[in-house]
Amino acid sequence: MEVNVEGDLMEKLVTLCKRRGFIFQSSEIYGGYNGFWDYGPYGVMLKRAVEQTWWKYMIEERDNVVGLDSTIICHPKVWKASGHVDRFGDIMCDCKDCKTRHRVDQMEDPTTCSNCGSKNLTEPREFNLMMKTHVGPVSDDDHIAYLRAESCQPIFIDFHQIRIATRKQLPFGIAQIGKAFRNEITPRMFTFRSREFTQMEMEFFVSDEESMEWYNFWKAERRRFYKDVLQFPDEMLQFHDHDKLAHYAKAAVDIEFKFPFGWGELEGIHHRGTWDMSRHQEFSCENQEYLDQKTNKKYLPTVVETSVGCDRMILAILCNAYAEDKAPTNKEGMEDDVRIVLRFPAIIAPVQVAVMPLSKKLNDKAEELARKLSRFYRTECDVTGNIGKRYRRQDEIGTPYCVTYDFESENDNAVTVRDRDTMEQERVPIADLKQYFDKKLYNW
Amino acid sequence: MEVNVEGDLMEKLVTLCKRRGFIFQSSEIYGGYNGFWDYGPYGVMLKRAVEQTWWKYMIEERDNVVGLDSTIICHPKVWKASGHVDRFGDIMCDCKDCKTRHRVDQMEDPTTCSNCGSKNLTEPREFNLMMKTHVGPVSDDDHIAYLRAESCQPIFIDFHQIRIATRKQLPFGIAQIGKAFRNEITPRMFTFRSREFTQMEMEFFVSDEESMEWYNFWKAERRRFYKDVLQFPDEMLQFHDHDKLAHYAKAAVDIEFKFPFGWGELEGIHHRGTWDMSRHQEFSCENQEYLDQKTNKKYLPTVVETSVGCDRMILAILCNAYAEDKAPTNKEGMEDDVRIVLRFPAIIAPVQVAVMPLSKKLNDKAEELARKLSRFYRTECDVTGNIGKRYRRQDEIGTPYCVTYDFESENDNAVTVRDRDTMEQERVPIADLKQYFDKKLYNW
Repeated sequence: MEVNVEGDLMEKLVTLCKRRGFIFQSSEIYGGYNGFWDYGPYGVMLKRAVEQTWWKYMIEERDNVVGLDSTIICHPKVWKASGHVDRFGDIMCDCKDCKTRHRVDQMEDPTTCSNCGSKNLTEPREFNLMMKTHVGPVSDDDHIAYLRAESCQPIFIDFHQIRIATRKQLPFGIAQIGKAFRNEITPRMFTFRSREFTQMEMEFFVSDEESMEWYNFWKAERRRFYKDVLQFPDEMLQFHDHDKLAHYAKAAVDIEFKFPFGWGELEGIHHRGTWDMSRHQEFSCENQEYLDQKTNKKYLPTVVETSVGCDRMILAILCNAYAEDKAPTNKEGMEDDVRIVLRFPAIIAPVQVAVMPLSKKLNDKAEELARKLSRFYRTECDVTGNIGKRYRRQDEIGTPYCVTYDFESENDNAVTVRDRDTMEQERVPIADLKQYFDKKLYNW
Repeated sequence: MEVNVEGDLMEKLVTLCKRRGFIFQSSEIYGGYNGFWDYGPYGVMLKRAVEQTWWKYMIEERDNVVGLDSTIICHPKVWKASGHVDRFGDIMCDCKDCKTRHRVDQMEDPTTCSNCGSKNLTEPREFNLMMKTHVGPVSDDDHIAYLRAESCQPIFIDFHQIRIATRKQLPFGIAQIGKAFRNEITPRMFTFRSREFTQMEMEFFVSDEESMEWYNFWKAERRRFYKDVLQFPDEMLQFHDHDKLAHYAKAAVDIEFKFPFGWGELEGIHHRGTWDMSRHQEFSCENQEYLDQKTNKKYLPTVVETSVGCDRMILAILCNAYAEDKAPTNKEGMEDDVRIVLRFPAIIAPVQVAVMPLSKKLNDKAEELARKLSRFYRTECDVTGNIGKRYRRQDEIGTPYCVTYDFESENDNAVTVRDRDTMEQERVPIADLKQYFDKKLYNW
């Protein structure tokens, strides 16, 4: 029986994530490192699955989007052209007394230091969020390089290279998954705002005339992803159209999720006009126009972008999956236990199938079956504790299917499959398991 | 008919990689950026497949290795403890006349500048290869951070965190795939030595007594990977045991591939003793010992490492796959064409199945089939040019199976599958395609 989650959901999640090895802070033995988070064994399985699901949905199952994996460090002029070097930051001021630095837009009273109460503050000035390094033999200004602050810029500069190699004609998109870095002053809300994070971005190149049609297409497609693939309920999402638009843009929308701490942005869909291509044309002095073979006209492609914060999406998935319910303890006279269950869609669950031998004598057989299944599904063999305990453990990490190998399995060559959500059990012949799970996982 | 590859294989590969969008230099429109390479559409498909194949082999199909995805930037003390801050670099000298910097071990004559002939050189001094940045609001020495120079250090510092969360007992391993950065003075040989690269590393934690047994186990396992999974011929690989060992190590071996430019290291398997754990214990002042439940003894785990350069492995895969053969032109009176074919193992081929309609009238049906297959295999629908041309195009990117949808398909609900290597064609019912490819790709 599903029960209401009581208490602070974020606190429960952070605790669960650490306890079961999903996500924990970086460098804990050195006291941690603010704004940096590591994905542990189940976390990395979830993250890889989320990335692959996005990748499949956005690239592999389409013929008009191709992939890219560009370097994190690229030519520094890229960030000059993009505007990040000159303007990408927060307005900050320092307290001259206690030296605390404040983001002005987050100060309750912009004339008073919230740390020491002093009114002796510096003038507000911009603090650039890009992380700098040096590439080459000398650490001087000529050798400055930047860690990318967003993964989309390399897509713009590689556009023609990719277009020629793939012989694609407009409209088509280029997508990539990768790390980005921002020296946030106040990393907070677990992984929601961190200094190193993963983006999943797709830039769709199109003629200006067709750009709003494609903007609407991608808005609908992304909605379908959240609804059908991630199975987010409607009430947990909102599409927030921007009131103010950049001068070059025709439309922009944020997709927001209802986090326990409030609505937070997961994804932006942006009509970027020809802004990016024109800037790179200007700074590289290379013609970035596209020759339309149908109209024989040359023009700079207009870009429609869909940009996801992968870590935020994972955090939303965790929030959405977290549930508590009452399950029988299987002990007479005992009250039902409250169990934690992560109701992940099976396609992204870190472990999709857990194989459990009913007795130690069956360990070998169960392990052999697990090994076979692991070729196709993320599989774990769980051999310790009684079956009830093992179910709990698997529920807590969101495993949709538990397969029990019992003494009868030797005779009937079948196993019992237990469904995480319905808790129903089914006897399935071992020879049919692949077909059974392909149907459940891929509806094939 | 297979023919000998004539001319410079590296040159041919670099050209093919750029032309077909596998790999090209970063920031080309800005004149390129030395030591940084981007993976284009087919390159990223290959790279993701190689990573996933390693991941599956090392983690998903084992019950004694778990995954991790740690941040690239971690606490700076990690690199103090690892020794990278104090000693990780090349010995360099500068020419005082022309200002060229030289790696002393690469100078033909260490007293003469190879650029201008001057003998006016600075004393050799160490040049640290770690890339520095700053994290936090102030760019001073207190806020220095480093881009990781290897992906293994975060594994050591997260060891106990992961051990507790997964309830694992020794021996077990932790593995991760991720970027690392080294400010190489002379990046060279295409992607072989670059400044930003991907590592695939596994650290296996074990008692000292059992460490050599596991070292030999992993040496055999990694050999099996190259032989059975990547299908490298024996003569292309050599296992080069180190003559000199670090004081803490019991054994070390480099796995080298015969590149066109000579033998080059792909992977290192290292017995690292308790060195890493003892250093982090010293610098963090946190006890890093493990309590062995069988013996009730406490000890620092010994580590056996397998460390792969992912980009180098991909380069080796490309070198090994590259072939030229003569194929009939299908035109009377014409000589056979020399075709390029990349003989990738099907499991890592960027495109596993290409679907081709025989006529434009069949495009819709072929696209529908491609969409269905794309749920399970990396699939492309190729609709332009005659079938012969399309075969060539697919051969050149290493597609193992081409599926032709023809007019007969409407009647017999079957398609023709052509094998890249044997060039044999088989008629396969559409309903059996999944079973057919599962058998071919996974031997299921």
